[in-house]
Amino acid sequence: MKIISLSKVEKYEVKMEGASGAWKQIPLGSKEGAPVFSYRVFSIEPGGHTPYHSHPYEHMNFVIEGSGVLVNEKGEEHPINAGDFAIVYPDEKHQYKNTSPDNVFRMICGVPVKYE
Amino acid sequence: MKIISLSKVEKYEVKMEGASGAWKQIPLGSKEGAPVFSYRVFSIEPGGHTPYHSHPYEHMNFVIEGSGVLVNEKGEEHPINAGDFAIVYPDEKHQYKNTSPDNVFRMICGVPVKYE
Repeated sequence: MKIISLSKVEKYEVKMEGASGAWKQIPLGSKEGAPVFSYRVFSIEPGGHTPYHSHPYEHMNFVIEGSGVLVNEKGEEHPINAGDFAIVYPDEKHQYKNTSPDNVFRMICGVPVKYE
Repeated sequence: MKIISLSKVEKYEVKMEGASGAWKQIPLGSKEGAPVFSYRVFSIEPGGHTPYHSHPYEHMNFVIEGSGVLVNEKGEEHPINAGDFAIVYPDEKHQYKNTSPDNVFRMICGVPVKYE
């Protein structure tokens, strides 16, 4: 077993087109020998967002802190806040936005290990 | 996509032998159409614990709140606190204990969906 503190995990900026002020960490993944799925953590700065896109695998989310919205396939914004869980299905278009002017929006985003 | 508040998810006591004061919820799993893995949440009361056991699949943990220990194969206790991640590998003996006299220990425990 391994116990991992998020503060000790390398953090790098998401450079994907359509992303802004978003940072990624992988506290549990292939490097730690995760057999089936990985936990990434995204930290989105105030006003920041992930790309509005889709991909052939699910997202399994838990919001660690902050307030934001999850944009659905129709472009509609659904509030998602600290303590909430969310699932985005494979091939479903989606985007996460931090809607707070002051605070980070931080969430776990679990995916199958090959897509980490 | 679906957004799920933990407070609206059914909670039931873990009746497994060796468990004490432990409650289970499944905010994201087969019922929500999770394709690969599920998020269970365990809430352990002060003084409570899960069984000291092993099984042929991993645990992927994130501690939502509280302070506890994760017991390893040798019976050694490792502190695990709010904000920490942990992985328990398949077939590794383990146990979670709440070490706080006052507060709940609550964690996400991700597993492959067929073991949810």
